Amino acid sequence: MNEPSYPAALTELMDLLRGLPGVGKRTAERMALCMFQWDEERRQALSENLRTLSSRICRCRECGNLAGEEEQNLCGICASPFRDHSLVCVVEEPTQIRSIEAGGVFKGVYHVLGGRLAPLEGRGPDSLSLKPLDDRIAAGSVQELILALSPDVEGQATAVYLADRYQDSPLKISRLAQGLPAGSDLSYADPATIAIALNGRTSFHREGR
Amino acid sequence: MNEPSYPAALTELMDLLRGLPGVGKRTAERMALCMFQWDEERRQALSENLRTLSSRICRCRECGNLAGEEEQNLCGICASPFRDHSLVCVVEEPTQIRSIEAGGVFKGVYHVLGGRLAPLEGRGPDSLSLKPLDDRIAAGSVQELILALSPDVEGQATAVYLADRYQDSPLKISRLAQGLPAGSDLSYADPATIAIALNGRTSFHREGR
Repeated sequence: MNEPSYPAALTELMDLLRGLPGVGKRTAERMALCMFQWDEERRQALSENLRTLSSRICRCRECGNLAGEEEQNLCGICASPFRDHSLVCVVEEPTQIRSIEAGGVFKGVYHVLGGRLAPLEGRGPDSLSLKPLDDRIAAGSVQELILALSPDVEGQATAVYLADRYQDSPLKISRLAQGLPAGSDLSYADPATIAIALNGRTSFHREGR
Repeated sequence: MNEPSYPAALTELMDLLRGLPGVGKRTAERMALCMFQWDEERRQALSENLRTLSSRICRCRECGNLAGEEEQNLCGICASPFRDHSLVCVVEEPTQIRSIEAGGVFKGVYHVLGGRLAPLEGRGPDSLSLKPLDDRIAAGSVQELILALSPDVEGQATAVYLADRYQDSPLKISRLAQGLPAGSDLSYADPATIAIALNGRTSFHREGR
């Protein structure tokens, strides 16, 4: 029979922290003790942030990305005058916008589907946020749609569905290139990636011509 | 010039989570997004826990371990009738109690010093919690003091100080054995540990005799 080593309030905190990505029992313990040793001000700031978090964040009314209430429901990208609003990159989730932005290459705007097609799990086109995209396209400002969906079965099914949906519009529809990832070693590439890279091979002096 | 990828509320949360043990920029990002996706109830529970944490935890009036207010300022160990209150293990911090308890061998109680001697940093005996220990010893209920201080310079200096402080009392004063850690490989033991283990060697059939 072991006496409890921590007061109830700390055990509670550890339980709440467990299950965060990469946080198991020992890490939750260290994190809870660290939070307990923070100065009061910082702990109250975190408490207050969590209390109001969901009310301070909304979906961008233009693209569905995460946006702050203080920004009139428009995310930083849609609000920016430096972005090309005729070029729309379609992604599944807001977190993927972050990945693309990290590259620093894309200068267009986004549309967040909020998921992808998964017929086996009962998620059809109705589960996706498509109306705002339809509206933007109908308004005539969009010239190209880049389908930036994950190169797996469900992602590709979603891309095919979207390509079909907008095939009668004058839009240019593209998707991200598939092939060998940058900096990878050919020895470790899987056969499916090599097959895709072979089929999609590009002329070597293409840019020079 | 990059547009901000996250609303202010999320960036704020990421900043607050950074600096927790093992949490850098990327992990803070993943944790903040995960907390944002938690259901409202769980996020409010964490917010409420943090808001009231410091008021729900106090120091055990007996030993200085962490205790809950609901337990009348007595930690689970001091409150337990199954513990031997004549055997007091002296540690630096409450977290070390957890380490000793994990072994499941010790059945006495603790005293938390709240630090250790570090003359170079200006921390002398006044910076330690010694009065409650003096009182317990003066009350006559303590028979043995185990000095469970870390085997480094400051820990040993603190142990020597405590041994001196109570040398005139009829207390038995002991300290944790030093030597090879359990399950370790002799090939990788450092010379200092081997020297200690040699000097402190024990008779092989000691327990059998």
